[in-house]
Amino acid sequence: MNEQNGYDIEDLHVGMSASFAKTITEADIILFSGVSGDINAVHLNEEYAATTAFKGRIAHGMLSASLISAVLANRLPGPGTIYLDQRLKFLAPVRPGDTVHATVCVREIVADKGRVVLETTCKVKDTVVIEGEAQVKIGSSVRRAAKALDQITPERLKA
Amino acid sequence: MNEQNGYDIEDLHVGMSASFAKTITEADIILFSGVSGDINAVHLNEEYAATTAFKGRIAHGMLSASLISAVLANRLPGPGTIYLDQRLKFLAPVRPGDTVHATVCVREIVADKGRVVLETTCKVKDTVVIEGEAQVKIGSSVRRAAKALDQITPERLKA
Repeated sequence: MNEQNGYDIEDLHVGMSASFAKTITEADIILFSGVSGDINAVHLNEEYAATTAFKGRIAHGMLSASLISAVLANRLPGPGTIYLDQRLKFLAPVRPGDTVHATVCVREIVADKGRVVLETTCKVKDTVVIEGEAQVKIGSSVRRAAKALDQITPERLKA
Repeated sequence: MNEQNGYDIEDLHVGMSASFAKTITEADIILFSGVSGDINAVHLNEEYAATTAFKGRIAHGMLSASLISAVLANRLPGPGTIYLDQRLKFLAPVRPGDTVHATVCVREIVADKGRVVLETTCKVKDTVVIEGEAQVKIGSSVRRAAKALDQITPERLKA
């Protein structure tokens, strides 16, 4: 683990997973509209949304997807993670009041590059609403130790 | 165009593009943390962020990415768009006060399936901060017209 309690590349193995769940409220949808600028009527206008295939307002796809960012940043690999790449497939709508469970699972570890590929899934109950894949960069305890050793010069050992 | 002033598949041609720009403020970062649950110290803690390679707080990658959702939903193809797929590569950090310009450009039109592939790019001044590709589904004016014709039965013509 690093100083912020995030995983180093040496701590991970394929199959490790972590989750974060959050209820998507009306407030989340309104705030996300303001933050993103996405004011699609299907998110904000119940009268219009009721006439669409969704039969009512739905949350922004990227709002549910942002929970994946939360799992990666807070839990696995956790603090210190640098987000490189994300693929998202939006499969089913999320409605106000739904609880989205975002799960990430380590699929591949590229140790020499400090890169990790993770499967990323968001579910509402048993329905997969988003599936995809993330790629992140994380630190290495071995490299940190090697760097610390490099800093021990003969002069410093004598002092 | 459809009733909400969004493009139909027949209105599009490869190379059409649209943009949306927004300054990413401190408020956006705080609100996005609450909405997503992503409370990474690199977004919220200046003292910690200053010690990282970023040398200060940065915005969530998915916050800048959400501006792509805004262009797709509001401008091109616009209202009526259904988001199917998004690929994102996070290339450079966005800092509080930066203005992110999100641009989408039609790359491929799959008319019989109502699907459109768009190149998606976010820039801060001349720096590309996110690049990727979106796939969306939109309506067809030809299909709407055909459906309307189907509803004209001999009985209704006599009436």
